[in-house]
Amino acid sequence: MQIIHTVQALREWRKTAGRVAFVPTMGNLHEGHLALVREAGKHADQVVVSIFVNRLQFGQGEDFSQYPRTLQQDADKLSKENVAVIFAPDEKELYPHVEQRYNVEPPNLQNELCGKFRPGHFRGVATVVSKLFNIVEPDTACFGKKDYQQLAIIKGLVEDLNFNIRIVPVDTGRASDGLALSSRNQYLNETERTEAPRLYRELTAIAEALRQGNLAYAELENAAIQNLTAAGWTVDYVEVRHAESLKVAHAGDKDLVVLAAARLGKTRLIDNVEVHLD
Amino acid sequence: MQIIHTVQALREWRKTAGRVAFVPTMGNLHEGHLALVREAGKHADQVVVSIFVNRLQFGQGEDFSQYPRTLQQDADKLSKENVAVIFAPDEKELYPHVEQRYNVEPPNLQNELCGKFRPGHFRGVATVVSKLFNIVEPDTACFGKKDYQQLAIIKGLVEDLNFNIRIVPVDTGRASDGLALSSRNQYLNETERTEAPRLYRELTAIAEALRQGNLAYAELENAAIQNLTAAGWTVDYVEVRHAESLKVAHAGDKDLVVLAAARLGKTRLIDNVEVHLD
Repeated sequence: MQIIHTVQALREWRKTAGRVAFVPTMGNLHEGHLALVREAGKHADQVVVSIFVNRLQFGQGEDFSQYPRTLQQDADKLSKENVAVIFAPDEKELYPHVEQRYNVEPPNLQNELCGKFRPGHFRGVATVVSKLFNIVEPDTACFGKKDYQQLAIIKGLVEDLNFNIRIVPVDTGRASDGLALSSRNQYLNETERTEAPRLYRELTAIAEALRQGNLAYAELENAAIQNLTAAGWTVDYVEVRHAESLKVAHAGDKDLVVLAAARLGKTRLIDNVEVHLD
Repeated sequence: MQIIHTVQALREWRKTAGRVAFVPTMGNLHEGHLALVREAGKHADQVVVSIFVNRLQFGQGEDFSQYPRTLQQDADKLSKENVAVIFAPDEKELYPHVEQRYNVEPPNLQNELCGKFRPGHFRGVATVVSKLFNIVEPDTACFGKKDYQQLAIIKGLVEDLNFNIRIVPVDTGRASDGLALSSRNQYLNETERTEAPRLYRELTAIAEALRQGNLAYAELENAAIQNLTAAGWTVDYVEVRHAESLKVAHAGDKDLVVLAAARLGKTRLIDNVEVHLD
């Protein structure tokens, strides 16, 4: 396994690499990332994992400077997996002009759900992923369903800008109590960590109600918001949406996803559960 | 020479094509385009020419519907050149959702010079060129200096979004009287065609004045605007800019370009002349 820091060196390696599967990350890897890496290994002989904390996708007052940077530990973990290259550029390598002048602008979905609370976030994601796609030139790229809206935006981006890349979604990794694995879980203190799985429980409760024929989306959403708020959460949103388009769910929709974002103390957690009705 | 109409068939061809040089066009090919094609042939064995009149880069009231579509004549011309593939997708092939949802947004340069008079034009150019780059996956792409601002935007785009493509600028082809070759020249009636070379003459006059040490940019620009207006033109702009950044020229700049856009009757013509001072 090589650690490559520059675009030029990565391109040099890429010339003779054959088929490549790619896992873009911000590092601080956990089992959820490793599941992406293992999935990637099924699609190509060579797996590239990028590690880059992308300033563009953090807003004012968000945790860019605080975000854990743990390259050595990440490399140790990846060295035990089938990974050919870690691509770990520094800030100046990806943003040599400091300002990113050309940006990939997603449609209005970027202003809904998480985008409503993180203005510019999905523009930053779409732009850095486009850059990384052009640098790594993968045949396949794996993205986690935990960042469900991000996955939808990446799929749309690939389709609309004609990237010749197959996007493979990977199921969310969870702790034994149901909490979705996330680098931000480490911000939680002990009390918060005990409370945190409630988010997933509320989503699965809505999913179960939907499966049992209760399609009063707004009531289900509001009940979950109330339960979370009563337990000390600050809820950004709980929403039932169409699983593919992420448009607001309408009566009769069969493929649904229930998405939520809520803050516990200073830590913002997101999660989602898909529901496919008969 | 093959004519390929679909993304899928182009990708199939691309798999075994080796090094590719690419010339994106809107068709209605003239000697200026053929110079691009010949330059492309110097950079790769396989040359791909795309022909697509890109709705996204035309504004309200512009000549999208009127723009000449001459695929058969274009193919005849290209069949005499070293061209492997004409890629001629229809509207639905490049814009299957009708709306282009993900767009490449250039920096503020897109709102200056031609962009001031054609809002959204360079966003449309940057987006379709990104799509075509992802479809054709060329090693090299050739762009004419006649569309100087477009060339600057493509160069910036390639750098900022890390496209692995070498951009080769090609000198403007001209008629014997100096008029820059353009598909839009055919909109000119006989009187207008006789008048049209004045645009280039005014630009070369400014270039000559600059070379002789007259660096009063605004005066030079205004004199040209007056001369053109007096001769019946409606001038969008005449400007001296830095040749690389296209920023407004400052005293002491050595690498300059004089750019102009002006309308003769209903026809909008553009041209430019580079000036490199010692």
